[in-house]
Amino acid sequence: LMRAVGIDEEFITGAADDKTKFFAFAEALEMSAGNPVYHWTHLELKRYFGYNGNLNKCTAEDVWERCCDKLKLGLSVHDIINSSNVDVICTTDDPTDDLSAHIRCRSLGGLKAKIFPTFRPDKAVNIHKAGFVEYIKKLELVSGTEIGSISTLKFVLKDRLDYFIENGCKVADHGLDNICFEACSDDEANVIFRKALAGQYISEYEAKKYITNLMLFFGKTYSENNIVMQLHYGAMRNVNTNMMNKLGPDTGFDCINDTGCGRELAMFLDCLEKTKNLPKTIVYSLNNIDNAMIDTITGSFAEAGIRSKVHHGAAWWFNDNKKGIEEHLSTYASLLPIGTFLGMLTDSRCFLSFSRHEFFRRIFCNWLANLIIKGEYPNDKRLIEKLIKDVSYNNCKKFLGF
Amino acid sequence: LMRAVGIDEEFITGAADDKTKFFAFAEALEMSAGNPVYHWTHLELKRYFGYNGNLNKCTAEDVWERCCDKLKLGLSVHDIINSSNVDVICTTDDPTDDLSAHIRCRSLGGLKAKIFPTFRPDKAVNIHKAGFVEYIKKLELVSGTEIGSISTLKFVLKDRLDYFIENGCKVADHGLDNICFEACSDDEANVIFRKALAGQYISEYEAKKYITNLMLFFGKTYSENNIVMQLHYGAMRNVNTNMMNKLGPDTGFDCINDTGCGRELAMFLDCLEKTKNLPKTIVYSLNNIDNAMIDTITGSFAEAGIRSKVHHGAAWWFNDNKKGIEEHLSTYASLLPIGTFLGMLTDSRCFLSFSRHEFFRRIFCNWLANLIIKGEYPNDKRLIEKLIKDVSYNNCKKFLGF
Amino acid sequence: LMRAVGIDEEFITGAADDKTKFFAFAEALEMSAGNPVYHWTHLELKRYFGYNGNLNKCTAEDVWERCCDKLKLGLSVHDIINSSNVDVICTTDDPTDDLSAHIRCRSLGGLKAKIFPTFRPDKAVNIHKAGFVEYIKKLELVSGTEIGSISTLKFVLKDRLDYFIENGCKVADHGLDNICFEACSDDEANVIFRKALAGQYISEYEAKKYITNLMLFFGKTYSENNIVMQLHYGAMRNVNTNMMNKLGPDTGFDCINDTGCGRELAMFLDCLEKTKNLPKTIVYSLNNIDNAMIDTITGSFAEAGIRSKVHHGAAWWFNDNKKGIEEHLSTYASLLPIGTFLGMLTDSRCFLSFSRHEFFRRIFCNWLANLIIKGEYPNDKRLIEKLIKDVSYNNCKKFLGF
Repeated sequence: LMRAVGIDEEFITGAADDKTKFFAFAEALEMSAGNPVYHWTHLELKRYFGYNGNLNKCTAEDVWERCCDKLKLGLSVHDIINSSNVDVICTTDDPTDDLSAHIRCRSLGGLKAKIFPTFRPDKAVNIHKAGFVEYIKKLELVSGTEIGSISTLKFVLKDRLDYFIENGCKVADHGLDNICFEACSDDEANVIFRKALAGQYISEYEAKKYITNLMLFFGKTYSENNIVMQLHYGAMRNVNTNMMNKLGPDTGFDCINDTGCGRELAMFLDCLEKTKNLPKTIVYSLNNIDNAMIDTITGSFAEAGIRSKVHHGAAWWFNDNKKGIEEHLSTYASLLPIGTFLGMLTDSRCFLSFSRHEFFRRIFCNWLANLIIKGEYPNDKRLIEKLIKDVSYNNCKKFLGF
Repeated sequence: LMRAVGIDEEFITGAADDKTKFFAFAEALEMSAGNPVYHWTHLELKRYFGYNGNLNKCTAEDVWERCCDKLKLGLSVHDIINSSNVDVICTTDDPTDDLSAHIRCRSLGGLKAKIFPTFRPDKAVNIHKAGFVEYIKKLELVSGTEIGSISTLKFVLKDRLDYFIENGCKVADHGLDNICFEACSDDEANVIFRKALAGQYISEYEAKKYITNLMLFFGKTYSENNIVMQLHYGAMRNVNTNMMNKLGPDTGFDCINDTGCGRELAMFLDCLEKTKNLPKTIVYSLNNIDNAMIDTITGSFAEAGIRSKVHHGAAWWFNDNKKGIEEHLSTYASLLPIGTFLGMLTDSRCFLSFSRHEFFRRIFCNWLANLIIKGEYPNDKRLIEKLIKDVSYNNCKKFLGF
Repeated sequence: LMRAVGIDEEFITGAADDKTKFFAFAEALEMSAGNPVYHWTHLELKRYFGYNGNLNKCTAEDVWERCCDKLKLGLSVHDIINSSNVDVICTTDDPTDDLSAHIRCRSLGGLKAKIFPTFRPDKAVNIHKAGFVEYIKKLELVSGTEIGSISTLKFVLKDRLDYFIENGCKVADHGLDNICFEACSDDEANVIFRKALAGQYISEYEAKKYITNLMLFFGKTYSENNIVMQLHYGAMRNVNTNMMNKLGPDTGFDCINDTGCGRELAMFLDCLEKTKNLPKTIVYSLNNIDNAMIDTITGSFAEAGIRSKVHHGAAWWFNDNKKGIEEHLSTYASLLPIGTFLGMLTDSRCFLSFSRHEFFRRIFCNWLANLIIKGEYPNDKRLIEKLIKDVSYNNCKKFLGF
């Protein structure tokens, strides 16, 4: 938002002092009617700083003072987490991580919330991207194992997953450009892997083959270990080369992509299901034009006794706003039983972002209330309570096994 | 819905008794706020069983008893059809069908509705799918003609269409993975056809060529015989191999596909129009992201004296819900005269599904009333009556030639 | 609309007299609830002819008389433009145009509005389309320069741009089938250009290379001369060959296309930005399923001191209706600061179409008012006034440099 209104990077990620940056933010915010940041900001100010007004250019001074006062009185991360009634936090971790922060955190105590690692092996998957060979070297170091073949790679990754599981891991996460499916034997995958290790060029086709082979391995391994597999796809990353060189990745220059992969998503899930290796899965697309397609694909892989074994995950990232959530809900409800929906899983780097759960739940309750007001769902307390509690809390807890 | 909430197949398509299945259905239904099945169920209970309450876990026993009582008093398929004011029912039939059921039905009488066959030659088109050669053998048997070339195939298919027309057929229907257009001479098509007959592998490119050639033949033939051509596309079928092996096709494991074909749809229609062989046509896509594109393509092929010679058909299958119908209507209205819309053509295997027409009409009237309330269309009885009658009944009757 | 209801071409573009055509139009219009033409017509009748009723079959005679009376009293194009408070009109002009109409218009005076040319060099870009060689010949004639290489072509085009700038040009416009990006050196582009000049076949791949090279030249040149670059893409043109042969291009037979190009759009912008040659840019897609994608791509190319250096332009052509504008606004607002939006830039051949600005502004104000009523944006006069004035007028004026 700040960049779009023309604010200098100096006042965003740059060297300017915090107060000047806050004022620049307030100026951008007041122009952002209908933006989720508008709502998140005000919910955060309300819930954690007791401020009920509107932040804008004219009120920025007052809000700044008030927040500083509150922070001086003490508002620790632990306070925020405890007062937000958080049950579980899952961090995102690379397989090479030693999870020492998790171990230290457990030994310290003081938090009502449990904190678990999430297994996110993207760097082992991205054979076609810069840094792959270095990453394999890092894996060798961490595991004390020389990785000369894809079977050793899989052995090491499984070993790291076991370590994660020992530390409470219940969920894996994959960020994929697109879901791909290109049948590939272990031998073929090994040839491609060794080519990459030798520093040779990997074509897009070879990358697809390797990724398919490895992702099927992950799926099977998660299934055997009762780990939920998350698949996030559809982002086009670092599109502004200058800013990538200046600020690095994950600094606000990622976009929605538009290259469909419905057929490949269906084939990937089916390939696992055929051999009874399909784990509990959550699929998220960054492009909301995939919503209905995903609902119908996930709906085709059910298992008795599990509410929606393959889930369409919550409106993610660029869709995590009122319009995006409402469209996601009404499409989901039109095609699947909304009572099975997992609700909000935020994906955030901010300690105040628990407000996003409130944001989602208000939008969900508003959506349901509209159905009831229009006479499209009965005003029956039992049904309403069940739906709201399931979508807001119970489904997610049960599905992820917390 | 039942699978998604985790109900065992035993209670869906399995051996469990009807009442147990009904209770399982009620449990899934109460979680399905915003789903069209929620509305269809309650409309059917209301119109055919006189039940005005809500079906859920707690009321299931009462509803079950009430429906059984009603059925004991007698509620025949004929009663349902007659009491639903049905004018015409078109069944979907393979060209090899002898239409004996149609002939018997006509001779029996007792129905106010006329029942016509629909010509659906998908199996003759799907040269790349299993069962093609067997199907050609079946066509040979039915027609008493050896089919060694595509010209003989076309002759036989035209002969079957004539038989269908003698039995009242006014409409053809095609279920296509995608609309394809790959120019192909009769000679080329014949070579591909003979290759397939000989059991040889047919590439995707060859299949496209053959399908284009055959679909252009169908278009021309329909045009010459005043048959309306329906094109349904965009489904990805049988994505769950295990369930396909267990239950067969058309059992709830089909999905929305996302591979665009706008250019090919336009080229196909244009190719027929260029030689004045374009029949009255209705196009349906399973992916609602095609809505606006289809409206603009169909709107480019008009003929004096016909209201929308090429139609964008009603929100189909996964779009046949409140959200899908409303989006379809408002996109259509934004790009074309809504007064020309054909309205609802259901596509159903259920004798109670006439309620879907009421469902559609209520949504249409609600949509129009909202325009009027907002002052975007005049509260003029003549105009409103005309629009509603045309979209609900007249346009379809006239277009299909009933 | 008239074609879709089945009116003969005689009464649309044909030889019928104006009154008969007007009556035929009225008949089509009354069936067009929810269509933007319905609103435009009534706004035009209200603002320029003082008619506040509804045009339909029954009122057509009265409306016709009233408009004729008004026209007899005098309603010149100058009157319309002056009474519409128009500040600036930009025409669309080919680089070969001598701009004599602009020069004459300036010398005549009598208009409060300024009229500037827009540089639209599509014919120099479309190397793969009919008429390319003839167009280069025309450019040679106008410039008095023999064009034997792409560097000479660029020299001539730059010279024509300078002439346009002398005549007030601030904006360029490009109509592209799709945004394409296929890296191409000047030498490669020159070979392709000379091939085309020699009348040889240009493949799709070669066309993409040439177009990429030339578009990057345009981008750089615009950047150096502070010209705003507009990119319109996503149309499929002249899909009905018979009507193309009968009426020529731009007569109502263009459609929305569905071939994505997100990756290429991002690469094109990044390629210019990398060398600091990215001009102020406005991107418009004809397919509204690209909305969110474009918002995230344009949002990745900011510059300090400029409100949204790369803009997502207003809902264009088939999206220029209430539904299209509302979706565009709410998607934009969800992803970017709506206060930076450029608002309406119409694209019209009609002297009464200034009403479309009122149409857009009413929809925008209605959208904002809904947020305020729901408590999602404060009822703060300063903020509201600023947002409305900026989006309706100030942003566009400032961005285009008027």
